[in-house]
Amino acid sequence: MSTPTHVPPAQGYRRIATEEAFAPGFVIDAFIDMIRNKKVDDPAFESLHGFYLLSQAPRAVEIRERLKDVGEMRIAHMDAAGIDLQILAITAPGPQIFDAVTGPAIARDANDWLAAAIAKHPRRFVGLTAIAPQAPQLAVQEIERGARKLGLKGVIINSHTHDEYLDEAKFWPIFEAAEALDTPIYLHPTGPSRRMAAPLIEAGLDGAIYGFGVDTGMHALRIITSGVFDRFPKLKLVLGHCGEALPFWLFRLDFMHAATVRAGRYPRIKPLQRSISEYMRENVYVTTSGMAWEPAIMFCHKVLGADRVLYAMDYPYQYVLDEVRDSDALPMTDAERKAFFQGNAERVFGLQPVL
Amino acid sequence: MSTPTHVPPAQGYRRIATEEAFAPGFVIDAFIDMIRNKKVDDPAFESLHGFYLLSQAPRAVEIRERLKDVGEMRIAHMDAAGIDLQILAITAPGPQIFDAVTGPAIARDANDWLAAAIAKHPRRFVGLTAIAPQAPQLAVQEIERGARKLGLKGVIINSHTHDEYLDEAKFWPIFEAAEALDTPIYLHPTGPSRRMAAPLIEAGLDGAIYGFGVDTGMHALRIITSGVFDRFPKLKLVLGHCGEALPFWLFRLDFMHAATVRAGRYPRIKPLQRSISEYMRENVYVTTSGMAWEPAIMFCHKVLGADRVLYAMDYPYQYVLDEVRDSDALPMTDAERKAFFQGNAERVFGLQPVL
Repeated sequence: MSTPTHVPPAQGYRRIATEEAFAPGFVIDAFIDMIRNKKVDDPAFESLHGFYLLSQAPRAVEIRERLKDVGEMRIAHMDAAGIDLQILAITAPGPQIFDAVTGPAIARDANDWLAAAIAKHPRRFVGLTAIAPQAPQLAVQEIERGARKLGLKGVIINSHTHDEYLDEAKFWPIFEAAEALDTPIYLHPTGPSRRMAAPLIEAGLDGAIYGFGVDTGMHALRIITSGVFDRFPKLKLVLGHCGEALPFWLFRLDFMHAATVRAGRYPRIKPLQRSISEYMRENVYVTTSGMAWEPAIMFCHKVLGADRVLYAMDYPYQYVLDEVRDSDALPMTDAERKAFFQGNAERVFGLQPVL
Repeated sequence: MSTPTHVPPAQGYRRIATEEAFAPGFVIDAFIDMIRNKKVDDPAFESLHGFYLLSQAPRAVEIRERLKDVGEMRIAHMDAAGIDLQILAITAPGPQIFDAVTGPAIARDANDWLAAAIAKHPRRFVGLTAIAPQAPQLAVQEIERGARKLGLKGVIINSHTHDEYLDEAKFWPIFEAAEALDTPIYLHPTGPSRRMAAPLIEAGLDGAIYGFGVDTGMHALRIITSGVFDRFPKLKLVLGHCGEALPFWLFRLDFMHAATVRAGRYPRIKPLQRSISEYMRENVYVTTSGMAWEPAIMFCHKVLGADRVLYAMDYPYQYVLDEVRDSDALPMTDAERKAFFQGNAERVFGLQPVL
């Protein structure tokens, strides 16, 4: 264990950014093919990547250049921001947008590509395993291959897969594999599923501004309320964007879940071993991607605990140097700050500690 | 101005509960008729009132008894909880579920019924004007009648009206009338609209546990992003449930709105005179209905300001005496606490100050 040389860690902790997006060129091309040739009926996907992958707007052009690079340009940006290590995840929707044959192949190729890119800069990058839940058994195999053969440190799932959520029993082998390998699942947003996207898209609210959080927050709640953590009590779930606002709702979630269980209003809302807030504090971790704002971060810190909140930048979508400085200045103790930037990520993702 | 005699205001402030639901028996009967005779295609409405109005579960039986009473039973409950004044609003979806002929008639009848109930206990109740936005000009007339003739203190709108949101231009006369009369609009949840309800209903998450906040939060964002407050800068909008989590999202809303405007990604997301967080701090008020939880309340207090957060109980849906004590114990100064329970409500709703 030696200190990195690229930036003096004068601050006393490594800055690990835990939700950083990339996409190999062949994945971007495959997304574009899906849109141009109308191979999928997913309006929020078309809204998202009709912009980021096809628009000539400066923001879109910049984002796609940066998504493709897991090398020198990205490292220069990390150095400028003081980011020591990125945890890389394939950008939404990843392999999940393809069919059950193409998706697993894209996942394997993307994971091989990622592992090769990481191998060139092992001090600066680690990565998460992309999977295609639409082929659950192949997804399980890929989780195992990612963890055991490729050295990847978790699993990235970009919310729904063709409008289906992971609370459906057919997906539970994915949770079983992740728990068995002690590898976290990062549940990242994608455009809202077809059956909820329309009123968001028509108002321009389907993306990161609001719709991402709606879909992913609901998805996490579906996982919790379906009893996934009772069945897989050691499973670790990571949510970005300060937990997609679920921490803010904790009291109401507990109150209304208990009232709904007592009333027997829905077959799907059944007694659980713990309260929703307990699962949020014991199985869920949240990162600060896109939420570099002291009030929301410290709120999560307070209601979930100092060991549950991890730094993230959301590169390249939110590459803002001042936000790193703001995060350095969060009103935490030195030990809490080190946990926030470094220790929690090392523990959750099973990284080799440095420093 | 004399002090009320029913409860000694030893705490130094009146407790005004600002989001308290009622429904006359004829409205409940009309809701039941809509469900039983399948007069509307609104799955979230059927989910909501298929339970509250038709179930024999103890919670449902209790709720509908309490909704119908704006008299002795309710006052006894208020006394037991230490609530001095309720601001009454017709329970969701109110007149909005009916057609454009029936809805306005239900609104008028409900407002007359409410005004008569208030007249019997004018120290304990004030009310909001129910309207049927599906008939915008009649809604405008009813807002004027409610404010000028019935003495009602604001307007209640239970989110979408047959899947349409108030950012549509045809509804803007409603905003114009409310601004002209300086009467606030309380945007209260209802079941999510048809085009977003399905994945929530199938998981049992369409109601107060999550779906209400999704629909109403989106609705408020649509109002803000469409420029309503640029056109009607003095309009006051009240949101329950600690602002439907929008305060938690403020930083991301501002960041992504600005990025989206710059990118020109959507025609509907256009430059505004102020940032979303500025509208939230200058045109919007939030109440604590269903969120009697110090972290969320104090978060709103901090990021919106002490003059923007109002106490609410959400009777009868959340009649919990301990929650009043918890609210009394919030870590505010005495002046802030008085504003929270009393002063802000008096100012926003134009109530006669007492004490």
